[in-house]
Amino acid sequence: MSVLEKLYGGTPLKQLNINELNCLCEEIREKIITVACQNGGHLSSNLGSVELTVAIHYVFDIPMDKLIFDVGHQSYTHKILTDRLSGFDNIRKSNGLSGFPDPMESKADAFLVGHAGTSISAGLGYCYSRDSLNEDYFVIDVVGDASFFNGENLEAITSSKKKPNKFLVIFNDNGMSISKNNNGLYKLVSKVTIRKSYTRFNSFLQRTIGKIFIGKFLKSIKRSLKRGLSVNSFMDSLGLKYVGKFDGHDLKTLIKILTDIKNFEEPTLLHVQTKKGKGHEDAENDSSRFHGVSKNLEISDNYFSSGISAILEKQIEKTPEIVAITAGMKDGVGLTSFAENHPNSFVDVGIQEEHAVTLSAGMAISGTKPIVFIYSTFLQRGYDQIVHDVCMQNLPVVFMIDRAGLVGADGKTHQGVFDLSYLTHLPNVTVLAPKNLAELEKMLSFALSKNSPVAIRYPNGKICDNYSDFTSDNFEEFEVLHGDLNADNVLLAVGPRAIEICDKIKSKTKKSIAIVNARTIKPLDSKTLDKILGKNIITIEENSKIGGFGSCVLGYYSNKGVLANVSVVGVNDEFVHVGTIEEQLAKNGITPDEIIKLLR
Amino acid sequence: MSVLEKLYGGTPLKQLNINELNCLCEEIREKIITVACQNGGHLSSNLGSVELTVAIHYVFDIPMDKLIFDVGHQSYTHKILTDRLSGFDNIRKSNGLSGFPDPMESKADAFLVGHAGTSISAGLGYCYSRDSLNEDYFVIDVVGDASFFNGENLEAITSSKKKPNKFLVIFNDNGMSISKNNNGLYKLVSKVTIRKSYTRFNSFLQRTIGKIFIGKFLKSIKRSLKRGLSVNSFMDSLGLKYVGKFDGHDLKTLIKILTDIKNFEEPTLLHVQTKKGKGHEDAENDSSRFHGVSKNLEISDNYFSSGISAILEKQIEKTPEIVAITAGMKDGVGLTSFAENHPNSFVDVGIQEEHAVTLSAGMAISGTKPIVFIYSTFLQRGYDQIVHDVCMQNLPVVFMIDRAGLVGADGKTHQGVFDLSYLTHLPNVTVLAPKNLAELEKMLSFALSKNSPVAIRYPNGKICDNYSDFTSDNFEEFEVLHGDLNADNVLLAVGPRAIEICDKIKSKTKKSIAIVNARTIKPLDSKTLDKILGKNIITIEENSKIGGFGSCVLGYYSNKGVLANVSVVGVNDEFVHVGTIEEQLAKNGITPDEIIKLLR
Repeated sequence: MSVLEKLYGGTPLKQLNINELNCLCEEIREKIITVACQNGGHLSSNLGSVELTVAIHYVFDIPMDKLIFDVGHQSYTHKILTDRLSGFDNIRKSNGLSGFPDPMESKADAFLVGHAGTSISAGLGYCYSRDSLNEDYFVIDVVGDASFFNGENLEAITSSKKKPNKFLVIFNDNGMSISKNNNGLYKLVSKVTIRKSYTRFNSFLQRTIGKIFIGKFLKSIKRSLKRGLSVNSFMDSLGLKYVGKFDGHDLKTLIKILTDIKNFEEPTLLHVQTKKGKGHEDAENDSSRFHGVSKNLEISDNYFSSGISAILEKQIEKTPEIVAITAGMKDGVGLTSFAENHPNSFVDVGIQEEHAVTLSAGMAISGTKPIVFIYSTFLQRGYDQIVHDVCMQNLPVVFMIDRAGLVGADGKTHQGVFDLSYLTHLPNVTVLAPKNLAELEKMLSFALSKNSPVAIRYPNGKICDNYSDFTSDNFEEFEVLHGDLNADNVLLAVGPRAIEICDKIKSKTKKSIAIVNARTIKPLDSKTLDKILGKNIITIEENSKIGGFGSCVLGYYSNKGVLANVSVVGVNDEFVHVGTIEEQLAKNGITPDEIIKLLR
Repeated sequence: MSVLEKLYGGTPLKQLNINELNCLCEEIREKIITVACQNGGHLSSNLGSVELTVAIHYVFDIPMDKLIFDVGHQSYTHKILTDRLSGFDNIRKSNGLSGFPDPMESKADAFLVGHAGTSISAGLGYCYSRDSLNEDYFVIDVVGDASFFNGENLEAITSSKKKPNKFLVIFNDNGMSISKNNNGLYKLVSKVTIRKSYTRFNSFLQRTIGKIFIGKFLKSIKRSLKRGLSVNSFMDSLGLKYVGKFDGHDLKTLIKILTDIKNFEEPTLLHVQTKKGKGHEDAENDSSRFHGVSKNLEISDNYFSSGISAILEKQIEKTPEIVAITAGMKDGVGLTSFAENHPNSFVDVGIQEEHAVTLSAGMAISGTKPIVFIYSTFLQRGYDQIVHDVCMQNLPVVFMIDRAGLVGADGKTHQGVFDLSYLTHLPNVTVLAPKNLAELEKMLSFALSKNSPVAIRYPNGKICDNYSDFTSDNFEEFEVLHGDLNADNVLLAVGPRAIEICDKIKSKTKKSIAIVNARTIKPLDSKTLDKILGKNIITIEENSKIGGFGSCVLGYYSNKGVLANVSVVGVNDEFVHVGTIEEQLAKNGITPDEIIKLLR
């Protein structure tokens, strides 16, 4: 009988001995590899945190104690330990488990996560309620070294020196971040040498952990390691006792330390070192590449992002002052080879989207040509910076918005269905959506020739490219792909999947239709819109119906004081759950059959 | 002849002697007090930075060297020193100077600011361009102690250890923040004792500033001041040489230090201590109250915010688990007396809007009832947190959005004209707009009774309250204030100023009109909207016409597949410049006369 079977047979985790616990870790590791290979998902980060998660569950009482993962792409072990083994095979599938923690899925998940940097704020919120309602539980945040330095975590950890008791931040240091950590503060913290042995504090120390432990630590550090003092004083200034650093795969030591921390009850930062991809040879050796994997461990085959580096290589020949900026997603957005070939024209700021946007504004105002590569969902973090630093100064920053639209298995925290709504109301910005890579390439050149902000949004996944030799260069106009504007029904489609749907409609109906590539979302193509007034107009987009492309078309006609028949097809006013993109399109009525019902 | 006259007569600043420079500071100080009394504006912060700004201009070559103020509410001296003395009397007035730096106003303003936390990112952007284009200038950021700890600055300063040369961050430490600085890291930095004397480094030191200066500093610190080491190592880990701290009103010393820093060229953090409100007795003693003043030094008389504390006092009797959260704007949002009376039910996180929102989500999920008081323009910083942490978890966080709509003299960085556009496309949120304080009070009770996110938006300024005894409690419905829904023209007005405009229309026309308080923006009142189909519908709001209330009404009818006559009156697709609110309304056609033209 495996230890997992024993556990699911009713034996409490806390009754397992250390050998069984170590076996359990190996079984969980195998399970994660098997399922991630089948379903895709975050492999490296989950393999790196198996022992740490088992130790936390062994020492603390989850869900009474609150465990909050930052980002949440390391929560598979936690899911397996909290009654979700049977569902685990269907993780990231429709009606299956989410790849991230979600309180709606299990009360063991204390907070919904997906984006970086929220765990310390959320944990402090829990502590506030607990203390003011006179409740009694521990709050444990697990934060990776990349997301620790996201601005929101830095805000939360510096916000007030007085930190609550029974509050533990575990700094899970794998030295990698999603791509590579260049953070100065991180370098300071990471220089502390690993503590090879750990002896349980004696009872005297237990009573006086705050002063004595730090005092001892200082003494030893002063002798040998000047840098350690800085770390410690730095943490002390944040109101946290620094304890570290320890091997995050040494289950026995982890259990001892966590037990002590639980008993001391003081606000603590525990620094553990882990290896991303631990236990999977390929993932250990190239954890960045294996951060997120597709089914069967393929590296994601994304139509648009796979072409980005080649396009930039050509562009930099013409425009040497371009600089590609990313916020910790170099591989995801397709910049791997460009970054390698042009290190001086590439900046990865880490998971710091706010900084990425304003840095770009600073570059643009001073003469270089910044191009920000970012996922639609993560650019939400830079909304104010787009408003205040880019659009208000009308600066030529180009935003290449990847994963715009439905994203499938990554689930509700990662859908890119709001970018048109959070961009189109901003003055000065041009918003474009290409149907294919050839068009994206021309749009980028067009964007770089403009002296104002431009956002180009494109989806992920495998795209069927039917129109590769059909590109007009005038991006102030829509492009008629099929039929003509005298047709009874004019379909204004944003992006390649909407166009693909229109192609299917064409083959399914005899009604008179025109298919238009609505590639310029802001400013709208008023000439075409004026021409089709009186027709049955259907807008199709992978964005919320509220404030998106269709909404702008409605606003355009209303502003002219004319009545127009416009049906808006897009994402409903609900968050989009895990599933395939096809399922998500169907759930929102973005299908040939549903749209055919709207034809005149 | 005053020194200012001499300066404007053509004598370069750099040719003035120290006595003249000190006189100049006094003259500038007088000018600031006079004009701020007349026009309103930021008094305390500007009085605190006179000598620092004069010293920077004396040592560096502005505009060739780039001077970036964080927030920018301390830029009056800079404006006076850069050819804007004559315009200075009209600061914050229509067609006058902005109260904040703006490159469109003067090339001496290197970056547009208004919100906190952008200066280090922007400065690094400048450095990147300078170095990659082989240009040669210094980049100087001036950052106050409050905005230094905004998440974006923390991102920028930690993002990469390698900082560019000729990059100077001046940490302007007045120990106040906008209200009161409770930041742990700040406490660490601020504990360094002030350096009473300053001797110019000798040439040996000049060659080796990096190691020796720090070495000497370390040595002296180790003897006397353990904390200093932490500061220094902390800064060192950020790739900045720490130099400090010095009296920011000692012009002679400031000039010497800045000259040395200019010669050393290494990335440096200079720590100066200044006094907010310096030179104005009332402002020195109560710099928080005098942070922003209205004309004639009145404290702003804002209809809604002035009633907030009293409403909360009543509410906490009924709902003891409420907690009021603010991000550094305690006085501005009207929480002064509530915070004093209920310190345990009040949290000021400082200028950390992201943290404020997720902290509230953490509180809401764990049983307390957070109410976030924040300006519309600053909530832009928390957009992703509203999406991801609040709305996606459907948590009962209440947002009290102050300064929603046009704000007048604070200018384009502070307009609250996007909140309806960035909120209405989010699932689960309820968005309300009260016409007066009585309604706001009832809406707050309603919001606290709901188990989902609610945003209540209200404007600033003096509001004329015509409807104090006319409040219905059903906030799922609009409220008819005048006429009935059978009228030919139905005016759907959001907020008190739109309603006031409708009242004026009523007295100016004989046409058949109904005036409706469109107080529930999301979800919309479908019953009323269905009833008025076929009427001439005019929506009126102080928000962008794109994605706002009117846009939602258009979407509602389109979604039903019916044709409706809807005219959307609101803010045009342009940023709103300095002026009075009346001027700003007129510029956007939100006036009785313009709306009368739309009547049937």
